[in-house]
Amino acid sequence: MNYLSDREARELICNIGHRMSDKGYVSANDGNMSIRVGENTAIITPTGINKGELTPDILLKIDFDGNILDNPGNMRPTCETRLHMNCYKSNDALMSTCHTHAQNAMVWACAGVALDVAFGPEPQGTIGKVPVAPYGYPGSVELSESVIPFTKDYKCCLLANHGAMSWGYSPKEAWYVMEALEAYAKLCMQMRMLQLTPRLLSREQIEDVVRYCKPTCMTEKNRMVGGDAVVNTQPGINLSELLGLK
Amino acid sequence: MNYLSDREARELICNIGHRMSDKGYVSANDGNMSIRVGENTAIITPTGINKGELTPDILLKIDFDGNILDNPGNMRPTCETRLHMNCYKSNDALMSTCHTHAQNAMVWACAGVALDVAFGPEPQGTIGKVPVAPYGYPGSVELSESVIPFTKDYKCCLLANHGAMSWGYSPKEAWYVMEALEAYAKLCMQMRMLQLTPRLLSREQIEDVVRYCKPTCMTEKNRMVGGDAVVNTQPGINLSELLGLK
Amino acid sequence: MNYLSDREARELICNIGHRMSDKGYVSANDGNMSIRVGENTAIITPTGINKGELTPDILLKIDFDGNILDNPGNMRPTCETRLHMNCYKSNDALMSTCHTHAQNAMVWACAGVALDVAFGPEPQGTIGKVPVAPYGYPGSVELSESVIPFTKDYKCCLLANHGAMSWGYSPKEAWYVMEALEAYAKLCMQMRMLQLTPRLLSREQIEDVVRYCKPTCMTEKNRMVGGDAVVNTQPGINLSELLGLK
Amino acid sequence: MNYLSDREARELICNIGHRMSDKGYVSANDGNMSIRVGENTAIITPTGINKGELTPDILLKIDFDGNILDNPGNMRPTCETRLHMNCYKSNDALMSTCHTHAQNAMVWACAGVALDVAFGPEPQGTIGKVPVAPYGYPGSVELSESVIPFTKDYKCCLLANHGAMSWGYSPKEAWYVMEALEAYAKLCMQMRMLQLTPRLLSREQIEDVVRYCKPTCMTEKNRMVGGDAVVNTQPGINLSELLGLK
Repeated sequence: MNYLSDREARELICNIGHRMSDKGYVSANDGNMSIRVGENTAIITPTGINKGELTPDILLKIDFDGNILDNPGNMRPTCETRLHMNCYKSNDALMSTCHTHAQNAMVWACAGVALDVAFGPEPQGTIGKVPVAPYGYPGSVELSESVIPFTKDYKCCLLANHGAMSWGYSPKEAWYVMEALEAYAKLCMQMRMLQLTPRLLSREQIEDVVRYCKPTCMTEKNRMVGGDAVVNTQPGINLSELLGLK
Repeated sequence: MNYLSDREARELICNIGHRMSDKGYVSANDGNMSIRVGENTAIITPTGINKGELTPDILLKIDFDGNILDNPGNMRPTCETRLHMNCYKSNDALMSTCHTHAQNAMVWACAGVALDVAFGPEPQGTIGKVPVAPYGYPGSVELSESVIPFTKDYKCCLLANHGAMSWGYSPKEAWYVMEALEAYAKLCMQMRMLQLTPRLLSREQIEDVVRYCKPTCMTEKNRMVGGDAVVNTQPGINLSELLGLK
Repeated sequence: MNYLSDREARELICNIGHRMSDKGYVSANDGNMSIRVGENTAIITPTGINKGELTPDILLKIDFDGNILDNPGNMRPTCETRLHMNCYKSNDALMSTCHTHAQNAMVWACAGVALDVAFGPEPQGTIGKVPVAPYGYPGSVELSESVIPFTKDYKCCLLANHGAMSWGYSPKEAWYVMEALEAYAKLCMQMRMLQLTPRLLSREQIEDVVRYCKPTCMTEKNRMVGGDAVVNTQPGINLSELLGLK
Repeated sequence: MNYLSDREARELICNIGHRMSDKGYVSANDGNMSIRVGENTAIITPTGINKGELTPDILLKIDFDGNILDNPGNMRPTCETRLHMNCYKSNDALMSTCHTHAQNAMVWACAGVALDVAFGPEPQGTIGKVPVAPYGYPGSVELSESVIPFTKDYKCCLLANHGAMSWGYSPKEAWYVMEALEAYAKLCMQMRMLQLTPRLLSREQIEDVVRYCKPTCMTEKNRMVGGDAVVNTQPGINLSELLGLK
């Protein structure tokens, strides 16, 4: 495989960390991420640091068993190190991992609701069904193992009561999946709050998306739920009718 | 016509792409846009790139049939190239096009609701009625043709289940219309969530707006729906009354 | 009075314009503002420009009758010039004016609801009651005169169906009032959406705020509506009780 | 104790002030904060200044009785100086304090609702239960004393009808707690608006969080309310089921 250099990975993580903070996906010391830089090694964020304040030299290089290989800032790695390493160990094609407390994903994580509705092509093409991994307390073995059943069949999951976890087949993909998950989680929330009847993709339309978009991971398991009838090629109704204005 | 130079168009697209990303109108590799630079040519975004990371040299110059004319970054053009080119082909006064997954527009796109209510002068003066174009999967001929009936009579449309599309009569107008559409879509959402009775413009007030604002495109078809009576020149009620506080 | 120099006013308007755009208070070419620089003169924004793209040299110096005194960019002044000048003409202590389409203020403007509930000390201390000025189309004499009855007794108003207008007794105050109005409008919206029972300030507590904060304008007319009983010095209820969890 | 130098504290407050403004936690001249720099001294923000415009030299050094020790900008200290100093006086391990009008915290403050529900590990691990301090008008002795009963047993509180107050055991912690409080307040709001049944942490899971996270302050009093049964290790339901789609 083609890995980023340690330096490139350190800079990319800082860049993404600053975006996490700017977008409000993390507060205080929330969130952590890693990028793989070798067969059995990754650059990972330290514990106890606001992601908006990351600099390349405070990141750590570790192996997948958590041994520290390079630590110029003399930091401790994130307490969720095992969670990230279990992603790589359970799917050796992965190149990056990302954990945040993105606000809209969090809402569904606290209600224990897996996001599986095909409102449009984008969620199916980029992320697919989003399952809920069972709860474990921060830093626990239970939490670190909770994602293992999902890393091959899905692109991301909700961590029950806790937040969102994503992984990717390229150094940037874990972050892009996180952004797409949060946008989809917000869409799901707004659809419920507005109490609108969605016009879902049909099963055939979902298959067209998979065939065309060729997502990096799109197993049968992560197909979303579509609607029975294809109504989305019909003209829409007008808002004025919906509000009873004419 | 007076076209931007290739260099100006490349820089303007990057500038707008960065705003798309900062405002959360796009996630991962979502979104694409073009600016016309000649009779039959445009600068367009490449596929597979986050819009916050655009640089001038990775954009492509193509003709309206999709032939690549200049490609310093050796990129592939966006998979929605036909969608953008069909805008220019169906209305040869257009100078720019823009497609995003802006969150509030998306909500209505997934419910198949055309936005046509004249809450105020600004939506009518800048964008007019927002129709829903029928669904086609990403990159499909169906999607690329779905906007053709709308490019002369409207300023933008919702793409069913997928997002928002806008076009403009100047290099920046497609983006400004996109911003105005998203603000209007959010207003529509909030009016519904608050279950407030809007005080709509009357038909006469709508005509005054068109007469005064002289929008770049304001055909009879894209007139919004107004209210029967002019009540908006009356004093408002007080929030304290609405909440039953006195 | 102590006026900003033309140069200082030009730079301050650009700075505020960029914030308007960054905060999403304006889309496309929405919004305009002015700062007074003499007995009978002000710097004002040009028409047709996105507020995020303002530069000092495209602003205009005009007198209160709209005559152009200095126009290095050869621009046309905003079509709402009369609206701004009528503020100064009707209250000659004012030093700045601001008009935006801030999203939450817009919601109430479209429903014609004056914001008058004393949820807390800050709205009363900074802005006071927010009335609704009657509708007039953009650029109309009706719109420009709609604010005249309010400029002495209030700090800002909603423009029916259209947006928000604020004014101030210092060069920056119009903008600060706009920010405070939008925050208050959002609070009003959230209180209604959550259907929570607010614990209002009492009439006496409102008077304490006025006495202590010494707002720049706080006539009897703009007193907000308080509650009958003082319950806000009692302990709050717990969210767990509100949700019926124990 | 290990204090920041005056210069470091001045720069950190400016940095945090700019974030307050960028995130919309403050409007106009809202908000204030302090960082302790000695046994009995702190750097504090001046009154009447927008937090986005803070520069190191306009901050003041005061002692805990409010005497001004260093004032290069010749400013007046915030009118809430006593409120901040009472935090240090009532808990001499504190190193920083922060007051904002963050929007979601404000909603609960106006309804007088203490936030005590353990939706997940993060609120318990970072902030714990959020009580409501009784109302006092801005600058009043009542307001300044309202937080005294809370500074040892809690990490932050809502100020009735007014906003949010936080404190910390390190120079940055007050700000981080404020960010975490606002995220938690938003989560509480969204859970209520969506009318979802949360899957709460059990009492045992809450104790695990405290044992593992070793929060800087986590007395018995600030334990959150958990659920009776542990259901969050079960698979979640699917959104499609929740919406009645299959």
